[in-house]
Amino acid sequence: MASDRFHVYDTTLRDGAQQEGLTLTVADKLAIARHLDGLGVGFIEGGWPGAIPKDTEFFRRARTELDLKHAQLAAFGATRRAGVQAADDPLVAALRESGAPVVTLVAKSHDRHVELALRTTLAENLAMIRDTVSHLRAEGQRVFLDAEHFFDGYKSNPAYALEVIRTAAEAGASVIALCDTNGGMLPDELGEVVHHAVSLGARIGIHCHDDTGCAVANTLAAVRAGSTHVQGCANGYGERSGNANLFTVVANLQLKRGYDLVPSLAELTRIAHAITEVTNVTPDSHAPYVGMSAFAHKAGLHASAIKVDPNLYQHIDPAHVGNGMRMLVSDMAGRASVELKGRELGYDLGPEHARTLVDRVKDLEAKGFTFEAADASFELLLRDTIHGERRHFEVESWRVTVERTRYGEVVSEATVKLEAKGERIVATGEGNGPVNALDKAVRLGLEKLYPELAKLELVDYRVRILEGEHGTDAITRVLITSSDDSGEWATVGVAENIIEASWYALEQAVSYALVRGCYEYQ
Amino acid sequence: MASDRFHVYDTTLRDGAQQEGLTLTVADKLAIARHLDGLGVGFIEGGWPGAIPKDTEFFRRARTELDLKHAQLAAFGATRRAGVQAADDPLVAALRESGAPVVTLVAKSHDRHVELALRTTLAENLAMIRDTVSHLRAEGQRVFLDAEHFFDGYKSNPAYALEVIRTAAEAGASVIALCDTNGGMLPDELGEVVHHAVSLGARIGIHCHDDTGCAVANTLAAVRAGSTHVQGCANGYGERSGNANLFTVVANLQLKRGYDLVPSLAELTRIAHAITEVTNVTPDSHAPYVGMSAFAHKAGLHASAIKVDPNLYQHIDPAHVGNGMRMLVSDMAGRASVELKGRELGYDLGPEHARTLVDRVKDLEAKGFTFEAADASFELLLRDTIHGERRHFEVESWRVTVERTRYGEVVSEATVKLEAKGERIVATGEGNGPVNALDKAVRLGLEKLYPELAKLELVDYRVRILEGEHGTDAITRVLITSSDDSGEWATVGVAENIIEASWYALEQAVSYALVRGCYEYQ
Repeated sequence: MASDRFHVYDTTLRDGAQQEGLTLTVADKLAIARHLDGLGVGFIEGGWPGAIPKDTEFFRRARTELDLKHAQLAAFGATRRAGVQAADDPLVAALRESGAPVVTLVAKSHDRHVELALRTTLAENLAMIRDTVSHLRAEGQRVFLDAEHFFDGYKSNPAYALEVIRTAAEAGASVIALCDTNGGMLPDELGEVVHHAVSLGARIGIHCHDDTGCAVANTLAAVRAGSTHVQGCANGYGERSGNANLFTVVANLQLKRGYDLVPSLAELTRIAHAITEVTNVTPDSHAPYVGMSAFAHKAGLHASAIKVDPNLYQHIDPAHVGNGMRMLVSDMAGRASVELKGRELGYDLGPEHARTLVDRVKDLEAKGFTFEAADASFELLLRDTIHGERRHFEVESWRVTVERTRYGEVVSEATVKLEAKGERIVATGEGNGPVNALDKAVRLGLEKLYPELAKLELVDYRVRILEGEHGTDAITRVLITSSDDSGEWATVGVAENIIEASWYALEQAVSYALVRGCYEYQ
Repeated sequence: MASDRFHVYDTTLRDGAQQEGLTLTVADKLAIARHLDGLGVGFIEGGWPGAIPKDTEFFRRARTELDLKHAQLAAFGATRRAGVQAADDPLVAALRESGAPVVTLVAKSHDRHVELALRTTLAENLAMIRDTVSHLRAEGQRVFLDAEHFFDGYKSNPAYALEVIRTAAEAGASVIALCDTNGGMLPDELGEVVHHAVSLGARIGIHCHDDTGCAVANTLAAVRAGSTHVQGCANGYGERSGNANLFTVVANLQLKRGYDLVPSLAELTRIAHAITEVTNVTPDSHAPYVGMSAFAHKAGLHASAIKVDPNLYQHIDPAHVGNGMRMLVSDMAGRASVELKGRELGYDLGPEHARTLVDRVKDLEAKGFTFEAADASFELLLRDTIHGERRHFEVESWRVTVERTRYGEVVSEATVKLEAKGERIVATGEGNGPVNALDKAVRLGLEKLYPELAKLELVDYRVRILEGEHGTDAITRVLITSSDDSGEWATVGVAENIIEASWYALEQAVSYALVRGCYEYQ
């Protein structure tokens, strides 16, 4: 069980799920909860049982299907309706019956919201808080209070906002989390308000949104002002610009402020990505700490100094969060970064090969290639430099046709003629586009010789038109990401003709699959 | 010209271009500079002339091709090499010759970096700063200094870090920008260091990276501590986790702290998105202020209260940044903006047509269309809504073949079958790619009926793959820009198949040319 001294409280399953386009099934929620528990957060807010049937189901299944090591589940809900007893409110009953050890009650703390949204009196709102908190406490649950719109409320009527804190604390709420619901605060002002709230003596939590790009900093400002409970979401999911990214908050506090919050910080990058697999939201490669690019370096200038001391160029050792430094090969690349990249890939380039490779990279990048996003093309180029060009198949010719018939149907068909292991191969594929058709034709042709290709999948395809320099025609750059059960790799092709560029990227994607598969060269 | 009291300094074209996967041509850089000037930033750092050939060319072309209203260009470069005179250093000469009114010199301010990366003495590094700054000042340029790794340097050797500021200021640098190069700072500590630096009396700037998710807050903390020059990048582009998002910084300072920084803040959302069209980086829908989701609400509970007072649920009026509140899953097009756009194009849309058009736009945008960058497609849709669909030609079928022969030659050929003015037309075109071949075939077929088409030229072709999750299953969006001697226009096509999407955009480009040419409908 996580320590109670400082709460890491995750609300991905409730507030994070408000993100546009994000929909979680009960199974998704259970899977995310397991990941969060693996990281070691203290609390996982599972949803609103009683109000949302899927969330009622989540808490029901959690009893038998979730075996949490660190975290406790929290059920989210509202204070009782105006004019009834908490004991008689069916939504409050659903919170009791959820079986969650913690209930987090949302309550209004902004006077105008009480009047306009809740349509009750300020006094009745306080009574609702008092009554609901003490009822649930008496029934044996721990209660946290989310003071909604607290900061805007404090600006509108500070005495009332503070009265909400006092009322909840007196009724037995063990944390009052101040919510910057509309996300408009900046850290300096927010810190001052939290400071006032903390001085009341209640335990204060913080819940921020990223509408000013300051959710993480606002959370840190609240902690500095005395808050000992931080709320946030995995990967910063949430409505509008998202909630505070709990992973960034935890990494900052643990690595830079000496807090001991989660036992498995070195799993952070893996867990952050595993959760994106569940949510099906494309991972943000620029996310602090856990993004693919978070420790990637492009500038050739720095590479020689990085060799001397990598810590001169990174704010933490990426291993602390399970990430790693990556060197990108770009037109600013020098020999040092190419050698480093070679080593990262497991090749020992001598100085002469390194020089040749740098020249080839610069030459190709001048023609529009980009290797920083095409690791596999770079590795093939590196292997060609060391070993000479060797391929598992030779291309004789290919042809693609895309046709719209008079009936409005669009069909794509490709034929490739290849040679491999002494055999001449002619294969035809149909697809939902020209590249898909080419891909199918190549794999159909080669699969009987190289059965591993059956697992190859083209997972991403990107096109960029590069402006021609000095009156030449524009050129097309295609980046293809492929995968099989051993991982993902990217290749690049450049040509005036978009199909030709796609072909090159595709040919390399297949060649690289065969290199990875450790097939003998023909 | 922007005021000199507080500098909004953009480094998208230099530091932002360090982002993984981002490669800007000279034309891209010029286009982005125009957008930034349209917003009203004070300084645009164009790149490193002398060191990077593309950047030398940028400054050369900028002299004739950029007509900046607000911004001044800054050339980025390093202090002279150790052991030579600034006047004799060819890289310093390139800065002089760039013609930029401002030079921003990067200098080491971290003792270990001087020794390990620069491999010179601490004293020589100061001499390099003094000499280079005073040389460029004497030659008539304004000089800013980027104190690289300043905050880490301050931790390592505060006296030396401060000495760098003093030396640069005494030599005539008008701003010393403190760089959190590795991005590891948190706002409280950063603010304290800036406070010390400001007390030296020099004008202090700030340059932050987002490795702790605090780049915006760090920038604000520096401003609070007395910095009057903020650096950042459009959309937060930059290496690793990105630079401080200049758009978020400006919106925060202008809307929440009362600074008067840029004249066109209401253009912010449009400009932020226009820049993503140039960089071809997918816009972050969660970006503060300008993201598609930044003011989007999953309605439900709050709907009625939002009707009473929308400001209860948003931290600013989104109109201030040219964004809008969105309820449910709908797009940015409201009736008012469609009516406005119609009027702008010279059409008087009644309320009924406006409603129909909004529905069609929403429907198409949900399918991946974008009309903001395809004015001609929008106008055709508008005309179809008012007059019913009328075209100057009908398409029976088309076919494109791209073939690589056994001799390595790649040929593209297209055949189109059309009907126009009662005639059936079959035409074949060859091109350097499939779209070029289709374009030639269509024009060849229609030219004798519509001779004006001889002047039609396809001047730009852009492809974006939407939702690239299943390779070629993804949806492809093609934007085509066409021109004739009367001007330029853009059309959009969306389909699973890239050739089909291109065809739609092409067909509309030709249709629009005929509408502009005021040909009678068949």
